Amino acid sequence: MTRPIFFLTDFGLADTYVGVVKAVILGIAPGATIVDLTHDLPAQDVRAGAFALWTAAPYLPPDAVVLAVVDPGVGTARRPIAVEAEGRLYVGPDNGVLSWVVGGEWRGVTLDRPQFWRPMVSASFHGRDLFGPVAAHLASDVPLDEVGSPLDALVRLPFPSPLRDLDASGTIGAVRSEVIHVDRFGNLITNLTAADLPPDPIVTVAGRTIRGLVPHFQATAPLIALIGSSGLLEVAVPNGSAASALGVGVGAAVVVRSVTIHP
Amino acid sequence: MTRPIFFLTDFGLADTYVGVVKAVILGIAPGATIVDLTHDLPAQDVRAGAFALWTAAPYLPPDAVVLAVVDPGVGTARRPIAVEAEGRLYVGPDNGVLSWVVGGEWRGVTLDRPQFWRPMVSASFHGRDLFGPVAAHLASDVPLDEVGSPLDALVRLPFPSPLRDLDASGTIGAVRSEVIHVDRFGNLITNLTAADLPPDPIVTVAGRTIRGLVPHFQATAPLIALIGSSGLLEVAVPNGSAASALGVGVGAAVVVRSVTIHP
Amino acid sequence: MTRPIFFLTDFGLADTYVGVVKAVILGIAPGATIVDLTHDLPAQDVRAGAFALWTAAPYLPPDAVVLAVVDPGVGTARRPIAVEAEGRLYVGPDNGVLSWVVGGEWRGVTLDRPQFWRPMVSASFHGRDLFGPVAAHLASDVPLDEVGSPLDALVRLPFPSPLRDLDASGTIGAVRSEVIHVDRFGNLITNLTAADLPPDPIVTVAGRTIRGLVPHFQATAPLIALIGSSGLLEVAVPNGSAASALGVGVGAAVVVRSVTIHP
Repeated sequence: MTRPIFFLTDFGLADTYVGVVKAVILGIAPGATIVDLTHDLPAQDVRAGAFALWTAAPYLPPDAVVLAVVDPGVGTARRPIAVEAEGRLYVGPDNGVLSWVVGGEWRGVTLDRPQFWRPMVSASFHGRDLFGPVAAHLASDVPLDEVGSPLDALVRLPFPSPLRDLDASGTIGAVRSEVIHVDRFGNLITNLTAADLPPDPIVTVAGRTIRGLVPHFQATAPLIALIGSSGLLEVAVPNGSAASALGVGVGAAVVVRSVTIHP
Repeated sequence: MTRPIFFLTDFGLADTYVGVVKAVILGIAPGATIVDLTHDLPAQDVRAGAFALWTAAPYLPPDAVVLAVVDPGVGTARRPIAVEAEGRLYVGPDNGVLSWVVGGEWRGVTLDRPQFWRPMVSASFHGRDLFGPVAAHLASDVPLDEVGSPLDALVRLPFPSPLRDLDASGTIGAVRSEVIHVDRFGNLITNLTAADLPPDPIVTVAGRTIRGLVPHFQATAPLIALIGSSGLLEVAVPNGSAASALGVGVGAAVVVRSVTIHP
Repeated sequence: MTRPIFFLTDFGLADTYVGVVKAVILGIAPGATIVDLTHDLPAQDVRAGAFALWTAAPYLPPDAVVLAVVDPGVGTARRPIAVEAEGRLYVGPDNGVLSWVVGGEWRGVTLDRPQFWRPMVSASFHGRDLFGPVAAHLASDVPLDEVGSPLDALVRLPFPSPLRDLDASGTIGAVRSEVIHVDRFGNLITNLTAADLPPDPIVTVAGRTIRGLVPHFQATAPLIALIGSSGLLEVAVPNGSAASALGVGVGAAVVVRSVTIHP
């Protein structure tokens, strides 16, 4: 049995691009299990891809092969790479899309061995011609070392770390962050974990203030804040869309203060 | 080989929610076949989920495991359940989403045994943390009795049964129903079967009247009525969208009279 | 192991139509691998289906079974067929959707043997009741000859061949073509291959002129022309949408001249 392949792109599903990559993979690794993580990332949005991978990775099987193709620079000098981290294998362009998910120890290769690619490599579809085939070979237990030459460093996308204001006494006064993703339900997802929050938090976004967190989406308040399923602070409208209600999206400022500090 | 899992949600495909549930399932049941029924149900629309399951179920293999997660009450007291009916297994919240598909004899359990869940269960994503894992165990032939405690009754969503007007002689004069689903082609699908219709039916919807049924979508009339592929009365525009042409959607009134009664 | 099935329709993913066809297939061929090519073809657009198949086919495994259901005439006299070409098997309605992919040698059958269908065949969903079951049987190695009677000819959809203007000396002056597909990135894809183009091409579309081709999408020009991943001439906006920028879509005229002929 081959290792399962988890597939993430900005290709959309209206064209046959995703299906064709899967066809090429199955030509190399017949019977392989291929699971779509999503193909509806905003077109050419490397950061959205990095966020999606970072939140999904903890739930992937330990033998997962991840194929991540958000590749606005396809055909240029950006390197194709494959990286192993925590046992899982990641394949994609070296443009930052893999950089948030590869946080701790890792080892990687530059994909420079054409025997693991399609015989003809187009300038504009490396998902089909290079990344997909390499993922198929890795899923078929070709060792990482064989598909490329050692990689020293990968391109790192700056992680949007929250800023902390300190007051005169050195206590954290406010945590400044932003909306990093809006999901299908219109929930505004930040990059703040529970550990980032001050006690008794007051969340401000789009001029609206939310006092305290609730445990789940079923609440009577019109606007709520909670720690969502990825462990990140979210702002939501119960049975509605916070993005629509507040008229904001990715990049909107989110500030968290403590009720005990600023009463 | 594991039993095939059929997966239905309102998660959409733009986030990684669906992919992450599949990843968790494959971690428990490697190589499992997982088929998407749809993930584009209107957000938090339990009734749309119940309808989709009800129309799809007759075509599922007899050993199907169905994972149905439309769960606006996630994190609240609504029970997680698994039910066996006609040999198939259904897993989801006890909020009515399973109630139309479980019509005749059934047996079920409340999912109250954490050894079949992920070790950490979030308050807002039971698809990933509870329902998906239980479906994976059931697909791997863990008996239904083992994953929970016996269930006496499940939450029933009222089925939108058609109303029948009787005239003075006790004959059915008109059947009053509604549009219960609009499909991708803009066809207006009702909950009326052929058996519900009077002879020589005249269908009225949105002020428009259609005399008689046609056998298929290729007709010369601008607006047609037919018994669709799920055995339900549909109103359609050949090579067009009835929903757009008439400007109506789910909930629109549909009345069927008989030409022989109201000439 | 069964042969992999590649599945293409205009059903969309919002209904359970696609999932139900897969359920029926798995009931006949348990464990079959089914890959979506796309289900978001424009509704009832046979030509878009023919184009999608034609561009995807070269990348399919040699043992692929292709299930192509774009079928506005479902229920009428159009024949259901299955065709073998270059080792691959294609199943669908005989309305032209298979005609561009079946270019060279082929053999085929009319699907006239109900023992390979569902017991009840609806008038409006042959994907579920007839084409899907036949594809499942073919994937399970039932020979093509068994599922139907020999087919002499199939319905051919005219291929939009480019027109070539000749000047007084008989030299090709201009090649006249059109946009045949707009992809998810807004790229305008024509039916011209590199072999169709004159030397030093100048591409004109929507009143805009592009001098020369670039090798990939990362270019400094606001509007570019290149040979895309399917080997076809495309017009693109780097990191943007040519369809939006130019306000054109499928059917828009594209003219290619040679800089050396019309300086």
